[in-house]
Amino acid sequence: MPDNPLRKNAQTPRANASGTPTLKLRARVMAGDAIAIGPGKIDLLEAIDATKSISAAAKSMGMSYRRAWLLVDEINHALSTPAVVTVTGGARGGGSDLTATGHRVVTLYRRIEQHAMKACQADIGELVALVRST
Amino acid sequence: MPDNPLRKNAQTPRANASGTPTLKLRARVMAGDAIAIGPGKIDLLEAIDATKSISAAAKSMGMSYRRAWLLVDEINHALSTPAVVTVTGGARGGGSDLTATGHRVVTLYRRIEQHAMKACQADIGELVALVRST
Repeated sequence: MPDNPLRKNAQTPRANASGTPTLKLRARVMAGDAIAIGPGKIDLLEAIDATKSISAAAKSMGMSYRRAWLLVDEINHALSTPAVVTVTGGARGGGSDLTATGHRVVTLYRRIEQHAMKACQADIGELVALVRST
Repeated sequence: MPDNPLRKNAQTPRANASGTPTLKLRARVMAGDAIAIGPGKIDLLEAIDATKSISAAAKSMGMSYRRAWLLVDEINHALSTPAVVTVTGGARGGGSDLTATGHRVVTLYRRIEQHAMKACQADIGELVALVRST
């Protein structure tokens, strides 16, 4: 997958190809056996928020339009109210955008990741220090 | 994979096949591009601690001995001091056991997961409530 400037909060594994070990925390909301919300969907919602378009968001993530559309369809059905809506008309001839629910999902998800890292800072520091640098 | 009574702290996805959505937080320590410590290795260390044997641990997890051995080799090399040692002799003719480092890795890893969930309880509750029950 190419670098994606829209993934503001995403980790960039290549950037860590050498040096100090780091801990990543990843949240997933499971509904039955399915992942209702996970890191890939959150990255996609952020890209849609930035581009106002599912196809531009897909392109920026190196993902097919079909795959992006399916992920949007999945998250819209997983939530009680949709995260993404199609906006028709307007100067740019329509596109997509996040709903209030979509924005809330992204905010809560990122806040959980960041807050969890901060809350566990001491233990994370100790665990990571047991791992050799590369 | 069969049920594994040794995985005290592991989530059981099948048990959540219907009902209220739940959030899972998973930690991984990355060393370069490799996962030095992740949920599978921690489950395996716990199983070795319980069985004092890599082969019994592998069996209890429905994993091949070869796979378990490779995971142990990976984590031993990823850490500054090994997590698992071979114990020779003794009444039971030898086996494997966790080192102090191995125990510490498991303790820190589980504490990070549990502490992170607790620290983010309110946001997790709000996020999960946005997802439909199945």
